[in-house]
Amino acid sequence: MSTIRLPKGYRFAGVACGIKASEKPDVSLVVCDVPAVASGVYTQNQVVAAPVQICRQRTPSETIRAVVTNSGNANACTGQQGQTDALAMCQHVAGLLDSKPESVLVMSTGVIGHHLPMPKVTEGIQKAHDSLGDQEEDFLGAADAILTTDLSRKVASAEVSLDGQTIRIAAMAKGAGMINPNMATMLALIITDAKLTTKQASRFAKSVADATFNRVSVDGHTSTNDTQLLLANGASEVAITEANEQAFQEALISVTQPLAIALAADGEGAERIMNVQVSGAQSDEDAELIARTVGASPLVKTALTGCDPNWGRIVSAAGYAGPKIDPDRTCLTIEGHQLYHNGAPTAFDEATVSQAIKDQKQVDVQLIVGSGPGKSNHITSDLTTSYVTFNSEYTT
Amino acid sequence: MSTIRLPKGYRFAGVACGIKASEKPDVSLVVCDVPAVASGVYTQNQVVAAPVQICRQRTPSETIRAVVTNSGNANACTGQQGQTDALAMCQHVAGLLDSKPESVLVMSTGVIGHHLPMPKVTEGIQKAHDSLGDQEEDFLGAADAILTTDLSRKVASAEVSLDGQTIRIAAMAKGAGMINPNMATMLALIITDAKLTTKQASRFAKSVADATFNRVSVDGHTSTNDTQLLLANGASEVAITEANEQAFQEALISVTQPLAIALAADGEGAERIMNVQVSGAQSDEDAELIARTVGASPLVKTALTGCDPNWGRIVSAAGYAGPKIDPDRTCLTIEGHQLYHNGAPTAFDEATVSQAIKDQKQVDVQLIVGSGPGKSNHITSDLTTSYVTFNSEYTT
Repeated sequence: MSTIRLPKGYRFAGVACGIKASEKPDVSLVVCDVPAVASGVYTQNQVVAAPVQICRQRTPSETIRAVVTNSGNANACTGQQGQTDALAMCQHVAGLLDSKPESVLVMSTGVIGHHLPMPKVTEGIQKAHDSLGDQEEDFLGAADAILTTDLSRKVASAEVSLDGQTIRIAAMAKGAGMINPNMATMLALIITDAKLTTKQASRFAKSVADATFNRVSVDGHTSTNDTQLLLANGASEVAITEANEQAFQEALISVTQPLAIALAADGEGAERIMNVQVSGAQSDEDAELIARTVGASPLVKTALTGCDPNWGRIVSAAGYAGPKIDPDRTCLTIEGHQLYHNGAPTAFDEATVSQAIKDQKQVDVQLIVGSGPGKSNHITSDLTTSYVTFNSEYTT
Repeated sequence: MSTIRLPKGYRFAGVACGIKASEKPDVSLVVCDVPAVASGVYTQNQVVAAPVQICRQRTPSETIRAVVTNSGNANACTGQQGQTDALAMCQHVAGLLDSKPESVLVMSTGVIGHHLPMPKVTEGIQKAHDSLGDQEEDFLGAADAILTTDLSRKVASAEVSLDGQTIRIAAMAKGAGMINPNMATMLALIITDAKLTTKQASRFAKSVADATFNRVSVDGHTSTNDTQLLLANGASEVAITEANEQAFQEALISVTQPLAIALAADGEGAERIMNVQVSGAQSDEDAELIARTVGASPLVKTALTGCDPNWGRIVSAAGYAGPKIDPDRTCLTIEGHQLYHNGAPTAFDEATVSQAIKDQKQVDVQLIVGSGPGKSNHITSDLTTSYVTFNSEYTT
């Protein structure tokens, strides 16, 4: 296991307080020793959970001291009581840190429409605070406590030299279901010891989301709770300037990109993912919508499940995505095998291509839809019987 | 079995010519003894099959003599050869009827990207012509020959008295997969002996599609071949006027509505359908988009599979549909049980509501999203492991 390069000046804890019947960790606390700059990107769903409403009000900020997250309960569609509970979570953390409630951010994930068991949550926050630490095991504990139906932990980090000085970035995420662009049911917390202005933090948060988390989908259902937070406490004393911002942005993406891919790979029931790369569209936006539409088609996703080189499903999905395409210049290549060229099928060996798909966990699809300059990509999971079984048995 | 009320002046045949390996019927022929007025509504996919391109050019028309349909092969994404083959099908029918090729319409459905086995198809057309008849069994034979993965025959008819005179309407359809609004992989042929102008035929064809076939979905994948044709040969000598057009329109919908519902109910792997009725939206268009988005969510569809009254999935899908909703005035009722009222959950017994869902083959969902005047509905199937198994095994 690779070592996490933890940014300076943060402490972490993850504990179990009994929100989850499984007794797995369900309260995560990340604390900054000094006030950090923070910005957020949130769900575009109009039905938003209480914690998202609170984070939206409080970011961007220059005075964030902590992020508290609970898993096992989304605190969504819970009315006024939900607001009161989310505020109480922040208040309790603030009290323990001798800070203001406005300096605490909150995230929740889990079932919708149930009130939080606040006595348990309060106890959990106290326990988390008592066990805060700055070691890798503490970070991993905090990362594990935000998971729900995820099969694996999602963490990444980077150490980058900017102008001869070192900064670090680390991130944790959770995914699994209700995954769609526009910040599906996913939570991500990115921390760095670089020194950012709130304006920079907001810009980086958005560009990172657009390049990574907004390009993956599992089931196309945009959640009520999606949140990506970026915290920068400046503990490295390295400021981000015009000269190094490109390197910093690349480092941010190097940390978040594998987490975004892990979200799709760890989609409920997923066995395989597909990277749909679209080019030749009239604009990047058009290419993105086409890639996303192909990735969302249940027929494309079940073809992937069966390792079936069913190019007709991909080409026809591109045709109904909306943006103008040129059917007579449309070409499709899967794992290096060209299956469709300028609007007509090529002669290819189905068994060979099927085996090429079977050999990959991440299948490469190149779709040319015309001769325009627009290109983008989208990562999607396959649709398996396990997804259906899991989600038709999941209890309200 | 109810008797089909066949319009006057049409003959029918369905035969097997070997396009389908199963040796089931795969060539369907419907002939008008006199030239009929005809109009069509077609897929909105930009990747369109050769037969759709030909029908688009030929409708509206006042001189249609026949509709020839093959199943088992979509003749889609087949390039210039596909055009040539579709034209040859029309030409062959025209020759047998001593008519012009322009007076023949053609539909195809089945796998994408394979060339039609034209010697077999030509033989099939000859055989169908030789067995044309005007009896119910002939009509049913023609209806069976357009089916693909459908589990059941889809036919309906009506006899209506307009101004004391009788007209008849009959229709056949096929569905099963790639079903989405905007004329998914579905074919429908509606015939009547009423007397319509081409303008009337076009108007009725569109309004019927909007009210019925465009409100059902199975997998949200818009096909390359969707076609709804309306033929009116005037054999009843009853013209449609301002005075009786409302009654005629209602009769058309009474024939096509059950076929549209049958498409969803017979969706690949479907066990249950859901009628999502949205009201309180800002416009009917908004309501339609919300109802369609709820119906398309895999999480909503799998909740239906599990008879799970998981209202959070429905409410959150409404929240990401796009149109403005009022979360604080959002209410949800399933099978008469109110589960969510003005943005907060109600106290309800999950087992009771789950049983109420289980008791129905068509589940009634009422979703209020605000206080606007807009309302619409959408019919969707559940998502079962059978759908996934079927579509991940389906060979290119």
